[in-house]
Amino acid sequence: MIGIAVVGYGYWGPNLVRNISETPRANLVCVCDLSSARLAAVQSRYPAVKTTDDFEEVLRDPRVEAIAIATPVSSHFKLAMKALMAGKHVFVEKPMAATAEEASRMVEEAARRRLILAVDHTFVHTGAVRKMCELVESGLGDMYYYDSVRVNLGLFQHDVSVIWDLAVHDLSILDYVLPEKPVAVSAIGMSHVTGEPENIAYLTLFFESKLIAHIHVNWLAPVKVRRTLIGGSNKMIVYDDLEPSEKIKVYDKGITMNCNSDAYGEKVHQMLVGYRSGDMYAPRLDMTEALKTELEQFIDCIEQNARPITDGHAGLRVVRTLEAATRSLAQRGRVVELEEVRRIA
Amino acid sequence: MIGIAVVGYGYWGPNLVRNISETPRANLVCVCDLSSARLAAVQSRYPAVKTTDDFEEVLRDPRVEAIAIATPVSSHFKLAMKALMAGKHVFVEKPMAATAEEASRMVEEAARRRLILAVDHTFVHTGAVRKMCELVESGLGDMYYYDSVRVNLGLFQHDVSVIWDLAVHDLSILDYVLPEKPVAVSAIGMSHVTGEPENIAYLTLFFESKLIAHIHVNWLAPVKVRRTLIGGSNKMIVYDDLEPSEKIKVYDKGITMNCNSDAYGEKVHQMLVGYRSGDMYAPRLDMTEALKTELEQFIDCIEQNARPITDGHAGLRVVRTLEAATRSLAQRGRVVELEEVRRIA
Amino acid sequence: MIGIAVVGYGYWGPNLVRNISETPRANLVCVCDLSSARLAAVQSRYPAVKTTDDFEEVLRDPRVEAIAIATPVSSHFKLAMKALMAGKHVFVEKPMAATAEEASRMVEEAARRRLILAVDHTFVHTGAVRKMCELVESGLGDMYYYDSVRVNLGLFQHDVSVIWDLAVHDLSILDYVLPEKPVAVSAIGMSHVTGEPENIAYLTLFFESKLIAHIHVNWLAPVKVRRTLIGGSNKMIVYDDLEPSEKIKVYDKGITMNCNSDAYGEKVHQMLVGYRSGDMYAPRLDMTEALKTELEQFIDCIEQNARPITDGHAGLRVVRTLEAATRSLAQRGRVVELEEVRRIA
Amino acid sequence: MIGIAVVGYGYWGPNLVRNISETPRANLVCVCDLSSARLAAVQSRYPAVKTTDDFEEVLRDPRVEAIAIATPVSSHFKLAMKALMAGKHVFVEKPMAATAEEASRMVEEAARRRLILAVDHTFVHTGAVRKMCELVESGLGDMYYYDSVRVNLGLFQHDVSVIWDLAVHDLSILDYVLPEKPVAVSAIGMSHVTGEPENIAYLTLFFESKLIAHIHVNWLAPVKVRRTLIGGSNKMIVYDDLEPSEKIKVYDKGITMNCNSDAYGEKVHQMLVGYRSGDMYAPRLDMTEALKTELEQFIDCIEQNARPITDGHAGLRVVRTLEAATRSLAQRGRVVELEEVRRIA
Repeated sequence: MIGIAVVGYGYWGPNLVRNISETPRANLVCVCDLSSARLAAVQSRYPAVKTTDDFEEVLRDPRVEAIAIATPVSSHFKLAMKALMAGKHVFVEKPMAATAEEASRMVEEAARRRLILAVDHTFVHTGAVRKMCELVESGLGDMYYYDSVRVNLGLFQHDVSVIWDLAVHDLSILDYVLPEKPVAVSAIGMSHVTGEPENIAYLTLFFESKLIAHIHVNWLAPVKVRRTLIGGSNKMIVYDDLEPSEKIKVYDKGITMNCNSDAYGEKVHQMLVGYRSGDMYAPRLDMTEALKTELEQFIDCIEQNARPITDGHAGLRVVRTLEAATRSLAQRGRVVELEEVRRIA
Repeated sequence: MIGIAVVGYGYWGPNLVRNISETPRANLVCVCDLSSARLAAVQSRYPAVKTTDDFEEVLRDPRVEAIAIATPVSSHFKLAMKALMAGKHVFVEKPMAATAEEASRMVEEAARRRLILAVDHTFVHTGAVRKMCELVESGLGDMYYYDSVRVNLGLFQHDVSVIWDLAVHDLSILDYVLPEKPVAVSAIGMSHVTGEPENIAYLTLFFESKLIAHIHVNWLAPVKVRRTLIGGSNKMIVYDDLEPSEKIKVYDKGITMNCNSDAYGEKVHQMLVGYRSGDMYAPRLDMTEALKTELEQFIDCIEQNARPITDGHAGLRVVRTLEAATRSLAQRGRVVELEEVRRIA
Repeated sequence: MIGIAVVGYGYWGPNLVRNISETPRANLVCVCDLSSARLAAVQSRYPAVKTTDDFEEVLRDPRVEAIAIATPVSSHFKLAMKALMAGKHVFVEKPMAATAEEASRMVEEAARRRLILAVDHTFVHTGAVRKMCELVESGLGDMYYYDSVRVNLGLFQHDVSVIWDLAVHDLSILDYVLPEKPVAVSAIGMSHVTGEPENIAYLTLFFESKLIAHIHVNWLAPVKVRRTLIGGSNKMIVYDDLEPSEKIKVYDKGITMNCNSDAYGEKVHQMLVGYRSGDMYAPRLDMTEALKTELEQFIDCIEQNARPITDGHAGLRVVRTLEAATRSLAQRGRVVELEEVRRIA
Repeated sequence: MIGIAVVGYGYWGPNLVRNISETPRANLVCVCDLSSARLAAVQSRYPAVKTTDDFEEVLRDPRVEAIAIATPVSSHFKLAMKALMAGKHVFVEKPMAATAEEASRMVEEAARRRLILAVDHTFVHTGAVRKMCELVESGLGDMYYYDSVRVNLGLFQHDVSVIWDLAVHDLSILDYVLPEKPVAVSAIGMSHVTGEPENIAYLTLFFESKLIAHIHVNWLAPVKVRRTLIGGSNKMIVYDDLEPSEKIKVYDKGITMNCNSDAYGEKVHQMLVGYRSGDMYAPRLDMTEALKTELEQFIDCIEQNARPITDGHAGLRVVRTLEAATRSLAQRGRVVELEEVRRIA
């Protein structure tokens, strides 16, 4: 049984606490937050769990083997570094840090100390995204495009643009599902509230192959949409996360190319494009809560000294892309290269 | 009764012929096409209509007061110029010409000869788009964004990219519905078939205000989508052209901004964003076939020497944007300014 | 090539005329209707086709080998009998007659004269219903239920209830798809317009097995619904005719039953019900127009003296059920037995 | 602050406990259940709450002013009667009792002792159903029909048919929303598992007016549907409980009737039916959890000695209809009159 402390009991922290408290393989040692009201809430629901507003106390507690960090992004680096230096394994919310520089140092620190550093890219651990990855690997053919729309009304943030808030989900999914890593990024967006960050944005990711990825994120949409189209040369996927059960639909659709020959047997310039349309199917998905799967895996990695699927490297690649996108955003979509990412990945 | 000839009886021509033949205010004088098989099809269905493969014969026919051109884009300029020079009014398919230079000369020729030049921006004449325009004018507030997705599997074209084929619809709608004209355009796309034009593309239009427009077009999607989101400061619209009856939904949703004061009465930096969510409604739409409405209006304009809603200027603005988008597409989305358009519009 | 005449050019007649005129295997000899305006419409669209308002003339024309009847139901019997007695094959709209007695005499007359009598149960010839039949035969397991909702706003009829207008479609589909024939029927309905027939009705069909079928038809619904659920012990189907492409969805869902044993090894009374949930798939469907398929088959049957899938017997079974349902409707759903149908089928 | 005990911590009990514990106006005194495992679960989540497996202890506790009963239906009567006789107010799950006789005695007992008896008809307290009731009262016109489909895969029960499990929801909604009470009921159903109660059923309710209500319930459907159509002479409603936000849609649709006059000015027999189709709108709904609203109201009623909206009389009417439906079900839909209900209501 691994002793775990949770730092931060705001929006996401309660989910971590609930899942850790329900996993027989973990011992929820304590919860740390600066707000006494929140700590009182923990106390009343989990009377056996220690609460504190002093992070140093968490670090000193020998029962704490791992720390889950669910505080605002700006504090991830400082808290995670302290945790690692105190010899604790770290499970940190996404995005893993405010800059690629910070993320990179976290990765190095964890590696040096042979500690597990997992980033909470939750979607990667859903049945839907895991199935999508399986499908991409086994039969979509050449990858053509990945197109995601993630829009709704709400939850404007004041410190980061909609890219850091919403596109981060797509970047983490992309990083897991696609067979290659992006080489450049372009982002265009707009802020409709004076003095606030961009509330609508469009990201394009370029790859070495003909694959193109595009992400539309928006805090000001009248309807909620969570829909991704993935096109391959053999099959295509629609992933609609709002569907209650058939989240993934696989279409046996595409085009066929034939060289045309003219009457004299000479190959003519123009290709003939034919269309192929077969059955659609919606595979049954594992509906286990993603966070549960993810925490089990984090514990496995600690016990077996293995590498989490969404480790610090994955987290770093996502932050690098966010950083590049932010730079592009400031220049109306100028293409920003991601050479560094390739070097690391 | 206006005597009309139709040139081109391929994909769209039959719709023109059917609508003209059913309008009591027009006399369908003749149909011209290079294919004798197509002309035979016209003959068998419309035995009273003259058919010919000789465009000059159409020009010489004194009963022909107006010519509707539904041939491939590359021939629009030559045919329309000849028609105008022969004193005929012109109704031409979209895009009105292959280049802005051509379109511009068509506009000048029609103006010089005081002839009507209408461009078949069909969607502008649907009940849905007309209602959308009404809503934008009367109560959406400040315009924030226009986001369109127009994707499906099929009909790859060999001479033009998906932008000229599909985004042209959105550009014509935008031109009609939005209160301002774009000042710059950026386009990113990809061709997945060697030697063929781009089959997927993303266009962004920039305006002088904070309005941003984005268009996603794709010939290789597993599902058909025709969906536009329009965000304003007071209301938002979802326009789904595939809905059988409720194509336009108006949401009384948005955000409210409040300046926050701290405990000492000082205005603090951060704005508080509140969310507003009221009723949704789907206005009843006029379901008349757009082409019928459009042809009636073309006849009105001829009779009253009036200016069509989708006249040559509208057609020219759309072609200029297509041209700029094509240039941007070749440079991975470099922003191309549209100063010229503003001068004319 | 079979010479065919069409009698009745109202709502459905134009579809028959169009399909017959486009089939190279048929010769559309003439169209008969009492309205001179309608005959003029035929003339202008099909100038080569003879038109007449005299049915006797049709009967006398030796080129006419078969007659398609698309007149109001009340006239089907008289026209079809005359046609058969004149030695013509008959293709008649559904329901095939106003009473089972009439339908039965039509069947006998056709049999005696060895003429083909086909009933236009259009839906049976769609790709969707044919696929459904295939699925029922090959793998749904024991049939549990067939539940159809067929509602919309409109087209109130004055002579027959909504059952004869809308439920007739379901009865013809049922007759084709299900492995057994109904043995009894119950119908409940209501008329909301004084003096008019029932505009909403619910039919239940009973079978010898545990299969139950239910049909909801309504002329006064705010939305259009065409949705059938079919439950079998192995698989279940949702057939939504309004879906543009995925009309048939097959669910690998169901229950599993286990006998429970108590601690002492004795079988306890209660069964344990488990739930099974696998993939869903939507098979590709043949999208050929049903009427085209049907007319081709009618011609095949004439040429090869074969039996149409929707022959007079099928038409008679449907009319018997409609008759029984009408009787039940008048008695608030009293169950009416269908013994006669079983004897014939 | 009202002291409340909850009896039964199975499927629904935890929701009661959570809501009562979160209401500042109530004091959750204790939870009673026969299972020690369940009581342990209560203990760990609500350490301050007393737990017991002895109902008599609950009755003796002077702090307990009201008892919420969430045990199996068969025990409602015994527990509620004891509670009332001990002077406690009662909040009981639906259906309120296993027989109308029991329900009737509960109503009398509460009346005699001037205690509040509320039945947990949860749906009545949702924003959607409350809005529906408002709409029916204010502008739907004459009521034509109420048609509900409530189907899904799952949760077979062994002691009661699907009517007592699922149709009870519709009956409680109907009882609240419709302007009149049913006078007769017919029910048809089928059991597909030997020895088990009916898993599919169709209920029809008759009224003195032309209103007709129909309910389709099914435990064996491949998809989940929760959809009600309500037709009135002025407006129509679609209530889809699975829609995340627009659960209620109001259609300005219907028919218009005109008496037709023939050429000589005489009124002819046939009515002309016209169709009317206007805007649709989806009113904003109060999204408060129904159970919270309901418990607040229960407390209000206790404090002000008022009558709950879903009081014992409402519960009794629902049970009477269930009882009548069960009788009808055993006789293939024989119409069963509900005279008794009218006498009481």
